[in-house]
Amino acid sequence: MISILPLPLAGEIVAGADLAALILDAAPPLETGDVVVVAHKAVAKAEGRVVDLATVEPSAEALEIAGDESDPRAIEVVLRESRRIVRRRGALIIAETHHGFICASAGVDRSNAPDDHAVLLPVDPDGSAAGLRAELERASGTRIAVIVADTMGRPLRNGIVGTAIGVSGMAPLRDLRGDADAGGYVLRSTTVAIADELAAAADLVLGKLERVPAALIRGYRAGGDGHARELIRPRERDLFI
Amino acid sequence: MISILPLPLAGEIVAGADLAALILDAAPPLETGDVVVVAHKAVAKAEGRVVDLATVEPSAEALEIAGDESDPRAIEVVLRESRRIVRRRGALIIAETHHGFICASAGVDRSNAPDDHAVLLPVDPDGSAAGLRAELERASGTRIAVIVADTMGRPLRNGIVGTAIGVSGMAPLRDLRGDADAGGYVLRSTTVAIADELAAAADLVLGKLERVPAALIRGYRAGGDGHARELIRPRERDLFI
Repeated sequence: MISILPLPLAGEIVAGADLAALILDAAPPLETGDVVVVAHKAVAKAEGRVVDLATVEPSAEALEIAGDESDPRAIEVVLRESRRIVRRRGALIIAETHHGFICASAGVDRSNAPDDHAVLLPVDPDGSAAGLRAELERASGTRIAVIVADTMGRPLRNGIVGTAIGVSGMAPLRDLRGDADAGGYVLRSTTVAIADELAAAADLVLGKLERVPAALIRGYRAGGDGHARELIRPRERDLFI
Repeated sequence: MISILPLPLAGEIVAGADLAALILDAAPPLETGDVVVVAHKAVAKAEGRVVDLATVEPSAEALEIAGDESDPRAIEVVLRESRRIVRRRGALIIAETHHGFICASAGVDRSNAPDDHAVLLPVDPDGSAAGLRAELERASGTRIAVIVADTMGRPLRNGIVGTAIGVSGMAPLRDLRGDADAGGYVLRSTTVAIADELAAAADLVLGKLERVPAALIRGYRAGGDGHARELIRPRERDLFI
Protein backbone atom coordinates (compact mmCIF):
# COMPACT_ATOMS: atom_id res chain seq x y z
CA MET A 1 0.00 0.00 0.00
CA ILE A 2 1.08 3.53 -0.74
CA SER A 3 -0.04 6.37 1.47
CA ILE A 4 -0.02 10.08 0.73
CA LEU A 5 0.02 12.31 3.78
CA PRO A 6 -0.60 16.03 3.49
CA LEU A 7 1.98 18.07 5.39
CA PRO A 8 0.50 21.42 6.43
CA LEU A 9 3.49 23.65 7.11
CA ALA A 10 3.11 26.17 9.89
CA GLY A 11 2.73 29.83 8.96
CA GLU A 12 3.54 31.70 5.77
CA ILE A 13 6.74 30.67 4.05
CA VAL A 14 9.10 33.62 3.73
CA ALA A 15 12.55 34.11 2.29
CA GLY A 16 15.08 32.21 4.35
CA ALA A 17 12.49 29.90 5.90
CA ASP A 18 13.89 26.57 7.09
CA LEU A 19 11.77 24.26 4.95
CA ALA A 20 13.41 21.12 6.30
CA ALA A 21 12.53 22.06 9.86
CA LEU A 22 8.95 22.93 8.88
CA ILE A 23 8.58 19.57 7.11
CA LEU A 24 10.04 17.62 10.02
CA ASP A 25 7.62 19.39 12.35
CA ALA A 26 4.63 18.50 10.16
CA ALA A 27 5.55 14.93 9.25
CA PRO A 28 5.59 11.70 11.24
CA PRO A 29 9.13 10.40 11.84
CA LEU A 30 10.65 9.89 8.37
CA GLU A 31 11.43 6.36 7.25
CA THR A 32 13.92 5.16 4.66
CA GLY A 33 12.16 4.98 1.31
CA ASP A 34 9.82 7.90 1.98
CA VAL A 35 9.33 10.43 -0.78
CA VAL A 36 8.82 14.03 0.30
CA VAL A 37 7.09 16.14 -2.35
CA VAL A 38 7.22 19.92 -1.96
CA ALA A 39 5.32 22.42 -4.05
CA HIS A 40 7.73 24.57 -5.99
CA LYS A 41 6.08 27.65 -4.59
CA ALA A 42 7.18 26.83 -1.04
CA VAL A 43 10.72 26.25 -2.26
CA ALA A 44 10.73 29.40 -4.36
CA LYS A 45 9.43 31.54 -1.52
CA ALA A 46 11.98 30.14 0.91
CA GLU A 47 14.69 30.89 -1.66
CA GLY A 48 13.44 34.44 -2.10
CA ARG A 49 12.34 33.91 -5.72
CA VAL A 50 9.49 36.40 -5.39
CA VAL A 51 9.34 39.55 -7.50
CA ASP A 52 7.59 42.74 -6.44
CA LEU A 53 5.89 43.85 -9.64
CA ALA A 54 6.15 47.48 -8.54
CA THR A 55 9.88 47.21 -9.24
CA VAL A 56 9.42 45.84 -12.76
CA GLU A 57 9.64 48.09 -15.82
CA PRO A 58 7.87 46.35 -18.71
CA SER A 59 9.71 46.29 -22.02
CA ALA A 60 8.08 47.25 -25.30
CA GLU A 61 7.66 43.54 -26.08
CA ALA A 62 5.93 42.92 -22.74
CA LEU A 63 3.59 45.86 -23.31
CA GLU A 64 2.71 44.58 -26.74
CA ILE A 65 2.07 41.01 -25.60
CA ALA A 66 0.06 42.08 -22.55
CA GLY A 67 -2.23 44.32 -24.56
CA ASP A 68 -5.47 44.78 -22.57
CA GLU A 69 -5.42 41.16 -21.47
CA SER A 70 -2.76 41.03 -18.84
CA ASP A 71 -0.41 42.96 -16.58
CA PRO A 72 2.63 43.98 -18.68
CA ARG A 73 4.86 43.84 -15.61
CA ALA A 74 3.93 40.19 -15.08
CA ILE A 75 4.55 39.50 -18.77
CA GLU A 76 7.93 41.17 -18.44
CA VAL A 77 8.80 38.78 -15.61
CA VAL A 78 7.69 35.85 -17.78
CA LEU A 79 9.94 37.03 -20.60
CA ARG A 80 12.90 37.34 -18.26
CA GLU A 81 12.34 33.78 -17.04
CA SER A 82 12.17 32.47 -20.62
CA ARG A 83 14.90 31.15 -22.88
CA ARG A 84 12.43 31.37 -25.75
CA ILE A 85 8.72 31.60 -26.46
CA VAL A 86 7.51 28.24 -27.77
CA ARG A 87 3.88 29.10 -28.44
CA ARG A 88 1.77 32.18 -27.84
CA ARG A 89 -1.90 33.03 -28.09
CA GLY A 90 -2.57 36.59 -27.02
CA ALA A 91 -1.09 37.03 -23.56
CA LEU A 92 -0.91 33.27 -23.02
CA ILE A 93 2.75 32.35 -23.33
CA ILE A 94 4.10 28.82 -23.45
CA ALA A 95 7.81 29.32 -22.85
CA GLU A 96 10.93 27.31 -22.48
CA THR A 97 12.46 28.30 -19.17
CA HIS A 98 16.17 28.71 -18.63
CA HIS A 99 16.09 25.22 -17.07
CA GLY A 100 14.54 23.78 -20.24
CA PHE A 101 11.00 23.20 -18.96
CA ILE A 102 8.29 24.07 -21.46
CA CYS A 103 5.34 25.45 -19.55
CA ALA A 104 2.79 28.25 -19.35
CA SER A 105 4.19 31.62 -18.32
CA ALA A 106 7.65 30.10 -17.79
CA GLY A 107 6.35 28.87 -14.44
CA VAL A 108 5.73 32.39 -13.15
CA ASP A 109 2.77 32.33 -10.81
CA ARG A 110 0.63 34.96 -9.15
CA SER A 111 -1.70 32.66 -7.26
CA ASN A 112 -0.79 32.26 -3.61
CA ALA A 113 1.62 35.12 -4.04
CA PRO A 114 1.47 38.31 -1.99
CA ASP A 115 -0.51 41.11 -3.68
CA ASP A 116 1.28 42.51 -6.68
CA HIS A 117 3.99 39.89 -6.46
CA ALA A 118 4.90 36.95 -8.65
CA VAL A 119 6.57 33.72 -7.64
CA LEU A 120 9.24 32.36 -9.99
CA LEU A 121 10.49 28.81 -10.33
CA PRO A 122 13.54 27.98 -8.21
CA VAL A 123 16.81 28.76 -10.03
CA ASP A 124 17.93 25.13 -9.78
CA PRO A 125 15.04 22.84 -8.73
CA ASP A 126 17.22 19.69 -8.80
CA GLY A 127 19.66 21.50 -6.55
CA SER A 128 16.82 22.63 -4.28
CA ALA A 129 15.63 19.03 -4.00
CA ALA A 130 19.15 17.83 -3.23
CA GLY A 131 19.69 20.48 -0.57
CA LEU A 132 16.39 19.78 1.13
CA ARG A 133 17.02 16.05 0.97
CA ALA A 134 20.46 16.41 2.57
CA GLU A 135 18.98 18.36 5.48
CA LEU A 136 16.07 15.95 5.95
CA GLU A 137 18.37 12.92 5.81
CA ARG A 138 20.82 14.46 8.23
CA ALA A 139 18.12 15.31 10.74
CA SER A 140 16.29 12.00 10.46
CA GLY A 141 19.07 9.49 9.81
CA THR A 142 17.11 8.03 6.89
CA ARG A 143 17.58 7.66 3.14
CA ILE A 144 14.69 9.38 1.35
CA ALA A 145 13.84 11.02 -1.97
CA VAL A 146 12.70 14.60 -2.50
CA ILE A 147 10.63 15.91 -5.40
CA VAL A 148 9.98 19.58 -6.10
CA ALA A 149 6.65 19.69 -7.93
CA ASP A 150 4.74 22.17 -10.01
CA THR A 151 1.35 21.83 -11.67
CA MET A 152 1.73 22.08 -15.42
CA GLY A 153 -0.52 22.03 -18.42
CA ARG A 154 0.35 19.71 -21.26
CA PRO A 155 -0.31 19.51 -24.98
CA LEU A 156 -3.30 17.46 -26.19
CA ARG A 157 -5.12 17.20 -22.86
CA ASN A 158 -7.10 19.62 -20.74
CA GLY A 159 -6.14 20.46 -17.20
CA ILE A 160 -2.93 20.81 -15.26
CA VAL A 161 -1.25 17.94 -13.40
CA GLY A 162 1.41 17.68 -10.72
CA THR A 163 4.80 17.42 -12.42
CA ALA A 164 8.33 16.90 -11.11
CA ILE A 165 10.69 19.83 -11.72
CA GLY A 166 13.30 18.86 -9.14
CA VAL A 167 14.33 15.37 -8.05
CA SER A 168 16.91 14.01 -5.64
CA GLY A 169 17.47 10.54 -4.23
CA MET A 170 15.62 8.55 -6.88
CA ALA A 171 15.72 7.79 -10.58
CA PRO A 172 12.88 9.78 -12.16
CA LEU A 173 12.41 7.22 -14.94
CA ARG A 174 11.93 3.49 -14.49
CA ASP A 175 12.18 0.95 -17.29
CA LEU A 176 9.57 -1.71 -16.74
CA ARG A 177 10.92 -4.33 -19.06
CA GLY A 178 14.58 -3.65 -19.64
CA ASP A 179 15.81 -5.29 -22.79
CA ALA A 180 13.20 -8.06 -22.84
CA ASP A 181 11.78 -6.70 -26.09
CA ALA A 182 14.60 -7.75 -28.35
CA GLY A 183 12.00 -9.32 -30.63
CA GLY A 184 11.28 -5.87 -31.98
CA TYR A 185 7.67 -6.06 -30.93
CA VAL A 186 7.63 -2.91 -28.84
CA LEU A 187 4.68 -0.83 -29.92
CA ARG A 188 4.84 1.51 -26.97
CA SER A 189 7.43 2.83 -24.57
CA THR A 190 7.75 1.09 -21.24
CA THR A 191 9.81 3.72 -19.49
CA VAL A 192 7.62 5.17 -16.78
CA ALA A 193 8.07 8.72 -15.52
CA ILE A 194 7.63 7.72 -11.90
CA ALA A 195 8.75 11.09 -10.54
CA ASP A 196 5.90 12.72 -12.47
CA GLU A 197 3.48 10.07 -11.22
CA LEU A 198 4.61 10.72 -7.65
CA ALA A 199 4.21 14.48 -8.18
CA ALA A 200 0.71 13.91 -9.59
CA ALA A 201 -0.19 11.67 -6.66
CA ALA A 202 1.04 14.28 -4.18
CA ASP A 203 -0.93 17.00 -5.94
CA LEU A 204 -4.11 15.17 -4.93
CA VAL A 205 -3.44 16.43 -1.40
CA LEU A 206 -1.46 19.58 -2.26
CA GLY A 207 -4.15 20.95 -4.52
CA LYS A 208 -7.17 19.99 -2.53
CA LEU A 209 -6.30 21.60 0.75
CA GLU A 210 -5.27 25.16 1.49
CA ARG A 211 -1.83 25.79 2.87
CA VAL A 212 -0.52 22.29 2.30
CA PRO A 213 2.65 22.84 0.29
CA ALA A 214 4.14 19.41 0.99
CA ALA A 215 3.20 15.76 1.09
CA LEU A 216 4.81 12.58 2.32
CA ILE A 217 4.48 9.48 0.12
CA ARG A 218 5.17 6.27 1.98
CA GLY A 219 5.29 2.74 0.65
CA TYR A 220 6.58 3.30 -2.86
CA ARG A 221 10.33 2.97 -2.25
CA ALA A 222 11.74 4.58 -5.34
CA GLY A 223 15.28 3.48 -6.07
CA GLY A 224 18.38 4.75 -7.81
CA ASP A 225 19.30 8.36 -8.27
CA GLY A 226 18.88 11.06 -10.88
CA HIS A 227 17.53 14.48 -11.74
CA ALA A 228 14.29 15.96 -13.01
CA ARG A 229 16.07 17.30 -16.06
CA GLU A 230 16.13 13.70 -17.37
CA LEU A 231 12.37 14.07 -17.78
CA ILE A 232 12.78 16.80 -20.39
CA ARG A 233 12.67 15.33 -23.88
CA PRO A 234 15.37 16.83 -26.08
CA ARG A 235 13.82 18.96 -28.81
CA GLU A 236 15.33 16.86 -31.60
CA ARG A 237 13.59 13.78 -30.25
CA ASP A 238 10.16 15.35 -29.81
CA LEU A 239 7.56 14.96 -32.53
CA PHE A 240 5.41 17.87 -31.40
CA ILE A 241 7.77 20.78 -31.25
CA MET B 1 -4.58 10.87 4.02
CA ILE B 2 -4.99 9.11 0.71
CA SER B 3 -4.16 5.43 0.39
CA ILE B 4 -3.55 3.44 -2.77
CA LEU B 5 -4.15 -0.28 -2.46
CA PRO B 6 -3.01 -2.68 -5.17
CA LEU B 7 -5.76 -5.13 -6.12
CA PRO B 8 -4.21 -8.33 -7.48
CA LEU B 9 -7.00 -9.97 -9.47
CA ALA B 10 -7.10 -13.77 -9.42
CA GLY B 11 -6.04 -15.62 -12.55
CA GLU B 12 -5.71 -14.50 -16.15
CA ILE B 13 -8.44 -12.16 -17.39
CA VAL B 14 -10.25 -13.70 -20.35
CA ALA B 15 -13.11 -12.54 -22.56
CA GLY B 16 -16.31 -12.44 -20.55
CA ALA B 17 -14.53 -12.28 -17.19
CA ASP B 18 -16.58 -10.71 -14.41
CA LEU B 19 -14.25 -7.84 -13.52
CA ALA B 20 -16.56 -6.48 -10.84
CA ALA B 21 -16.57 -9.81 -9.02
CA LEU B 22 -12.79 -10.11 -9.29
CA ILE B 23 -12.35 -6.60 -7.91
CA LEU B 24 -14.77 -7.18 -5.04
CA ASP B 25 -12.87 -10.37 -4.18
CA ALA B 26 -9.54 -8.55 -4.12
CA ALA B 27 -10.60 -5.32 -2.37
CA PRO B 28 -11.55 -4.57 1.20
CA PRO B 29 -15.27 -3.69 1.58
CA LEU B 30 -15.81 -0.67 -0.67
CA GLU B 31 -16.68 2.66 0.94
CA THR B 32 -18.52 5.62 -0.50
CA GLY B 33 -15.95 7.96 -2.03
CA ASP B 34 -13.56 5.20 -3.07
CA VAL B 35 -12.01 5.43 -6.53
CA VAL B 36 -11.40 2.13 -8.31
CA VAL B 37 -8.76 2.41 -11.05
CA VAL B 38 -8.55 -0.43 -13.56
CA ALA B 39 -5.86 -0.86 -16.20
CA HIS B 40 -7.41 -0.65 -19.65
CA LYS B 41 -5.81 -3.96 -20.52
CA ALA B 42 -7.93 -5.82 -17.97
CA VAL B 43 -11.06 -4.11 -19.28
CA ALA B 44 -10.13 -4.74 -22.90
CA LYS B 45 -9.38 -8.41 -22.29
CA ALA B 46 -12.66 -8.93 -20.42
CA GLU B 47 -14.44 -7.24 -23.32
CA GLY B 48 -12.71 -9.48 -25.83
CA ARG B 49 -10.73 -6.65 -27.43
CA VAL B 50 -7.81 -8.93 -28.26
CA VAL B 51 -6.73 -9.57 -31.83
CA ASP B 52 -4.96 -12.72 -32.99
CA LEU B 53 -2.35 -11.38 -35.37
CA ALA B 54 -2.47 -14.63 -37.37
CA THR B 55 -5.88 -13.49 -38.62
CA VAL B 56 -4.63 -10.05 -39.74
CA GLU B 57 -3.74 -9.37 -43.39
CA PRO B 58 -1.47 -6.31 -43.49
CA SER B 59 -2.34 -3.65 -46.05
CA ALA B 60 0.22 -2.13 -48.39
CA GLU B 61 0.37 0.91 -46.09
CA ALA B 62 1.06 -1.28 -43.05
CA LEU B 63 3.79 -3.16 -44.91
CA GLU B 64 5.42 0.09 -45.93
CA ILE B 65 5.30 1.63 -42.45
CA ALA B 66 6.52 -1.54 -40.74
CA GLY B 67 9.54 -1.92 -43.01
CA ASP B 68 12.12 -4.02 -41.21
CA GLU B 69 11.35 -2.33 -37.91
CA SER B 70 8.08 -3.85 -36.86
CA ASP B 71 5.46 -6.51 -37.46
CA PRO B 72 3.25 -5.33 -40.35
CA ARG B 73 0.26 -7.18 -38.89
CA ALA B 74 0.57 -5.17 -35.67
CA ILE B 75 0.91 -1.97 -37.68
CA GLU B 76 -2.24 -2.94 -39.60
CA VAL B 77 -4.11 -3.25 -36.30
CA VAL B 78 -2.80 0.18 -35.26
CA LEU B 79 -4.04 1.69 -38.53
CA ARG B 80 -7.49 0.15 -38.04
CA GLU B 81 -7.70 1.63 -34.54
CA SER B 82 -6.71 5.08 -35.83
CA ARG B 83 -8.84 7.92 -37.03
CA ARG B 84 -5.68 9.55 -38.37
CA ILE B 85 -1.94 9.47 -37.99
CA VAL B 86 -0.84 12.56 -36.10
CA ARG B 87 2.93 12.01 -36.16
CA ARG B 88 5.12 9.23 -37.42
CA ARG B 89 8.81 8.39 -37.21
CA GLY B 90 9.58 5.11 -38.91
CA ALA B 91 7.28 2.48 -37.44
CA LEU B 92 6.52 4.68 -34.42
CA ILE B 93 2.99 5.97 -34.96
CA ILE B 94 1.32 8.63 -32.84
CA ALA B 95 -2.31 8.29 -33.81
CA GLU B 96 -5.64 9.79 -32.95
CA THR B 97 -7.89 6.90 -31.98
CA HIS B 98 -11.54 6.67 -32.94
CA HIS B 99 -12.30 7.93 -29.40
CA GLY B 100 -10.12 11.00 -29.95
CA PHE B 101 -7.15 10.05 -27.78
CA ILE B 102 -3.79 10.93 -29.25
CA CYS B 103 -1.31 8.26 -28.25
CA ALA B 104 1.40 5.90 -29.44
CA SER B 105 0.19 3.03 -31.62
CA ALA B 106 -3.44 4.09 -31.10
CA GLY B 107 -3.29 2.36 -27.74
CA VAL B 108 -2.60 -1.04 -29.29
CA ASP B 109 -0.41 -3.05 -26.96
CA ARG B 110 1.50 -6.29 -27.24
CA SER B 111 2.94 -6.36 -23.73
CA ASN B 112 1.01 -8.60 -21.35
CA ALA B 113 -0.84 -9.98 -24.36
CA PRO B 114 -0.85 -13.65 -25.31
CA ASP B 115 1.85 -14.58 -27.86
CA ASP B 116 1.12 -13.15 -31.27
CA HIS B 117 -1.87 -11.20 -29.99
CA ALA B 118 -2.48 -7.50 -29.49
CA VAL B 119 -4.75 -5.81 -26.95
CA LEU B 120 -6.82 -2.88 -28.20
CA LEU B 121 -8.33 -0.05 -26.20
CA PRO B 122 -11.93 -0.66 -25.08
CA VAL B 123 -14.47 0.51 -27.69
CA ASP B 124 -16.02 2.94 -25.21
CA PRO B 125 -13.84 3.39 -22.12
CA ASP B 126 -16.27 5.85 -20.47
CA GLY B 127 -19.00 3.27 -20.99
CA SER B 128 -16.78 0.52 -19.61
CA ALA B 129 -16.13 2.64 -16.51
CA ALA B 130 -19.86 3.33 -16.11
CA GLY B 131 -20.78 -0.34 -16.46
CA LEU B 132 -18.18 -1.48 -13.97
CA ARG B 133 -19.18 1.24 -11.56
CA ALA B 134 -22.85 0.26 -11.73
CA GLU B 135 -21.98 -3.33 -10.89
CA LEU B 136 -19.62 -2.39 -8.07
CA GLU B 137 -22.14 0.04 -6.59
CA ARG B 138 -24.97 -2.45 -6.82
CA ALA B 139 -22.97 -5.18 -5.10
CA SER B 140 -21.53 -2.94 -2.40
CA GLY B 141 -24.31 -0.43 -1.75
CA THR B 142 -21.82 2.43 -2.03
CA ARG B 143 -21.27 5.46 -4.27
CA ILE B 144 -17.85 5.24 -5.87
CA ALA B 145 -15.94 6.41 -8.93
CA VAL B 146 -14.28 4.23 -11.56
CA ILE B 147 -11.36 5.18 -13.78
CA VAL B 148 -10.11 3.11 -16.71
CA ALA B 149 -6.41 3.96 -17.04
CA ASP B 150 -3.73 3.53 -19.63
CA THR B 151 -0.09 4.57 -19.54
CA MET B 152 0.59 7.15 -22.20
CA GLY B 153 3.54 9.07 -23.48
CA ARG B 154 3.22 12.80 -23.84
CA PRO B 155 4.83 15.54 -25.85
CA LEU B 156 7.78 17.45 -24.35
CA ARG B 157 8.58 15.03 -21.55
CA ASN B 158 10.18 11.60 -21.42
CA GLY B 159 8.38 8.59 -20.03
CA ILE B 160 4.83 7.35 -19.91
CA VAL B 161 2.40 8.16 -17.10
CA GLY B 162 -0.91 6.73 -15.94
CA THR B 163 -3.71 8.54 -17.76
CA ALA B 164 -7.50 8.36 -17.51
CA ILE B 165 -9.22 7.09 -20.65
CA GLY B 166 -12.53 6.19 -19.01
CA VAL B 167 -14.24 7.91 -16.08
CA SER B 168 -17.52 7.41 -14.27
CA GLY B 169 -18.85 8.81 -11.01
CA MET B 170 -16.61 11.86 -10.76
CA ALA B 171 -15.80 15.07 -12.58
CA PRO B 172 -12.40 14.51 -14.27
CA LEU B 173 -11.52 18.20 -14.06
CA ARG B 174 -11.61 20.37 -10.96
CA ASP B 175 -11.40 24.14 -10.96
CA LEU B 176 -9.37 25.25 -7.98
CA ARG B 177 -10.31 28.89 -7.91
CA GLY B 178 -13.59 29.26 -9.73
CA ASP B 179 -14.10 32.83 -10.81
CA ALA B 180 -11.83 34.37 -8.20
CA ASP B 181 -9.52 35.60 -10.95
CA ALA B 182 -11.76 38.28 -12.34
CA GLY B 183 -8.85 40.70 -11.99
CA GLY B 184 -7.41 39.23 -15.17
CA TYR B 185 -4.25 38.23 -13.42
CA VAL B 186 -4.40 34.56 -14.28
CA LEU B 187 -1.04 33.58 -15.69
CA ARG B 188 -1.71 29.88 -15.57
CA SER B 189 -4.67 27.56 -15.66
CA THR B 190 -6.11 26.38 -12.38
CA THR B 191 -8.23 23.56 -13.71
CA VAL B 192 -6.69 20.35 -12.44
CA ALA B 193 -7.03 17.09 -14.33
CA ILE B 194 -7.70 15.09 -11.18
CA ALA B 195 -8.74 11.96 -13.07
CA ASP B 196 -5.30 11.89 -14.69
CA GLU B 197 -3.64 12.51 -11.32
CA LEU B 198 -5.61 9.62 -9.82
CA ALA B 199 -4.64 7.41 -12.76
CA ALA B 200 -0.98 8.39 -12.32
CA ALA B 201 -1.18 7.68 -8.59
CA ALA B 202 -2.73 4.27 -9.23
CA ASP B 203 -0.04 3.44 -11.78
CA LEU B 204 2.50 3.59 -8.95
CA VAL B 205 1.06 0.26 -7.79
CA LEU B 206 -0.22 -1.03 -11.16
CA GLY B 207 3.12 -0.64 -12.86
CA LYS B 208 5.37 -1.78 -10.07
CA LEU B 209 3.83 -5.17 -9.38
CA GLU B 210 3.05 -8.00 -11.76
CA ARG B 211 -0.53 -9.02 -12.28
CA VAL B 212 -2.04 -6.07 -10.46
CA PRO B 213 -4.44 -4.60 -13.00
CA ALA B 214 -6.47 -2.59 -10.48
CA ALA B 215 -6.04 -0.28 -7.53
CA LEU B 216 -8.29 1.18 -4.88
CA ILE B 217 -7.74 4.83 -3.95
CA ARG B 218 -9.31 5.74 -0.64
CA GLY B 219 -9.47 9.14 1.03
CA TYR B 220 -9.70 11.45 -1.96
CA ARG B 221 -13.47 11.69 -2.36
CA ALA B 222 -13.80 12.98 -5.87
CA GLY B 223 -17.12 14.70 -6.50
CA GLY B 224 -19.44 15.45 -9.37
CA ASP B 225 -19.77 13.43 -12.51
CA GLY B 226 -18.34 13.45 -16.00
CA HIS B 227 -16.41 11.56 -18.65
CA ALA B 228 -12.79 11.07 -19.65
CA ARG B 229 -13.50 12.58 -23.05
CA GLU B 230 -13.62 15.99 -21.29
CA LEU B 231 -9.88 15.58 -20.81
CA ILE B 232 -9.24 15.65 -24.54
CA ARG B 233 -8.37 19.15 -25.67
CA PRO B 234 -10.18 20.06 -28.90
CA ARG B 235 -7.70 20.38 -31.74
CA GLU B 236 -8.64 23.98 -32.41
CA ARG B 237 -7.70 24.92 -28.85
CA ASP B 238 -4.37 23.13 -28.79
CA LEU B 239 -1.19 25.04 -29.51
CA PHE B 240 0.91 21.98 -30.33
CA ILE B 241 -1.05 20.18 -32.98
